[in-house]
Amino acid sequence: MIKVAIVGYGNLGKGIEIGLKNNPDMQCVGIFTRRDPETLMSLGSPVYSYDRLMDGLDIDVCILCGGSAKDLPLQTPQLASLYNVIDTYDNHGLIPQHFDAVDKVAKESKKTALISSGWDPGIFSIMRLLGQSILPSGRTETFWGKGVSQGHSDALRRIKGVKNAVQYTIPKADAIEGLREDINLELSIKDKHLRECYIVLDDGVDKEVIRNEILTMPHYFADYDTIVHFIEEDELLKNHSDMPHGGLVIRQGKLSEDNQALMEFSLKLDSNPEYTASVVLAYTRAVYRMHEAGYHGALSVLDVAPKYLSPKSSAQLRKELL
Amino acid sequence: MIKVAIVGYGNLGKGIEIGLKNNPDMQCVGIFTRRDPETLMSLGSPVYSYDRLMDGLDIDVCILCGGSAKDLPLQTPQLASLYNVIDTYDNHGLIPQHFDAVDKVAKESKKTALISSGWDPGIFSIMRLLGQSILPSGRTETFWGKGVSQGHSDALRRIKGVKNAVQYTIPKADAIEGLREDINLELSIKDKHLRECYIVLDDGVDKEVIRNEILTMPHYFADYDTIVHFIEEDELLKNHSDMPHGGLVIRQGKLSEDNQALMEFSLKLDSNPEYTASVVLAYTRAVYRMHEAGYHGALSVLDVAPKYLSPKSSAQLRKELL
Repeated sequence: MIKVAIVGYGNLGKGIEIGLKNNPDMQCVGIFTRRDPETLMSLGSPVYSYDRLMDGLDIDVCILCGGSAKDLPLQTPQLASLYNVIDTYDNHGLIPQHFDAVDKVAKESKKTALISSGWDPGIFSIMRLLGQSILPSGRTETFWGKGVSQGHSDALRRIKGVKNAVQYTIPKADAIEGLREDINLELSIKDKHLRECYIVLDDGVDKEVIRNEILTMPHYFADYDTIVHFIEEDELLKNHSDMPHGGLVIRQGKLSEDNQALMEFSLKLDSNPEYTASVVLAYTRAVYRMHEAGYHGALSVLDVAPKYLSPKSSAQLRKELL
Repeated sequence: MIKVAIVGYGNLGKGIEIGLKNNPDMQCVGIFTRRDPETLMSLGSPVYSYDRLMDGLDIDVCILCGGSAKDLPLQTPQLASLYNVIDTYDNHGLIPQHFDAVDKVAKESKKTALISSGWDPGIFSIMRLLGQSILPSGRTETFWGKGVSQGHSDALRRIKGVKNAVQYTIPKADAIEGLREDINLELSIKDKHLRECYIVLDDGVDKEVIRNEILTMPHYFADYDTIVHFIEEDELLKNHSDMPHGGLVIRQGKLSEDNQALMEFSLKLDSNPEYTASVVLAYTRAVYRMHEAGYHGALSVLDVAPKYLSPKSSAQLRKELL
């Protein structure tokens, strides 16, 4: 049994606790939180204070479920000094720094630390690597959605007069179809994705003022085709509280003068946090097994041989999957 | 530069020679053949007798392009005693034995030997492993085509009265669509794939006799919906000499009581041998790099961390792909 700890209990932490039911070779030692443990309602796992982790408990892998902005830059190196760890750090531009910081600690503590797991970064990163390595002369495009973008929803909620909001990123089917036909198809930002906003206004706020503010918001919406719906809060809570997501990595490449190849990997997810948790759990197993095999330091998904993700033996995998 | 040898020069060997143009970090030392080297027209690489390989030449990786039935069971262990090697052994039921035989030799010679590369077995095996590891509670189905099945085409050509033949395996769109909607959809062999045959008859042979023989042929056609076309040989050569192929690995799984996830990986290939060669070349790089890193013995694609497939550094890959 692989003894895991869930560190942080937001959507991802809950997803991990749910996902453990699909992974009978793992058991949850506990949930560790910076909130008052008495106030946290888990699905059954014991709940402890984050500080207890400093005691050096009997844990094979700490699964860090905090946010990339504030939690993980501190927690991942801190806990890598005591435990094998895995996180879902996704602040793209700062991943190299995060990797180096964690690597330094984990090498000193002789622990194994996998950063930036999940599906993007994560499984999609592997697909981009397979694409460019197998078809070196080619083009990769990534599409996201249909799914809720947390960053864009937050941007909407920061507008004065907006009470609540959800934003869906939607890939444009025409762009995907066009790419399959024409490797050289030019695609602008606007051509690839559509943004659909569901907005609940404070009382007495002018819809057209808000609509205009959204449509002209730089970076977030101004460069896109954006659709704005104004709805009541009960409708938002009823119809837009799920967290579906998905996406597509497409690689087109030249095999020779006359021949091309198309590789596509797509996801369709009823729940973004539950799928992310499922990926993290498979890589948690890999962290445990690579640590057993003697690997120390930081890793990303690109460093993990597929065999480490499975509870089955290499011989069994060869027999069943090759 | 990685110095590679092409061993055997059929469709795959030609594909390797073509594919090397997309991989500037590799150079071809030569093509090694059991035919008279004088009779073999390469695209520019020097051609030598297979026996020359016994001299222990300056080669980083031998790329074995022979057949699984007769060539590879002998050649892969033989050459693994002298060189790092890679093959595309695809005789499914015998892969464990082949792996063990190659592993024994390669461990003794301290060489690295990757067997069963390509796309199935190969990339599709990785996708099946990702699917079952990330979504342990679920179902995987693999579809092949549209593409020429060499085994089924050979079976047609063995029928007395058949001068030439090509058989396409075609996945049924209804089955794929149905699976996406219903994880429990029951699919028989017949439901998944269609078989379409283009037949050239010897003079004076009765079409209906041959059609009946095809439709009732056990294992190959009797269990399928099979369409038989009779055409002239010039039409066969003109319209059915290309080797397109493709396929789909689909994994559906339960995330929780209410939520599911769908993972799909698909290929659409203008040329099956050229794409297979492209996969083999990426894994040739991995063999070279894993040998440099100190790995000895047999490997499959399931043992290879994605980073080894790319000529880029790990730091560059993290920066660009995570």
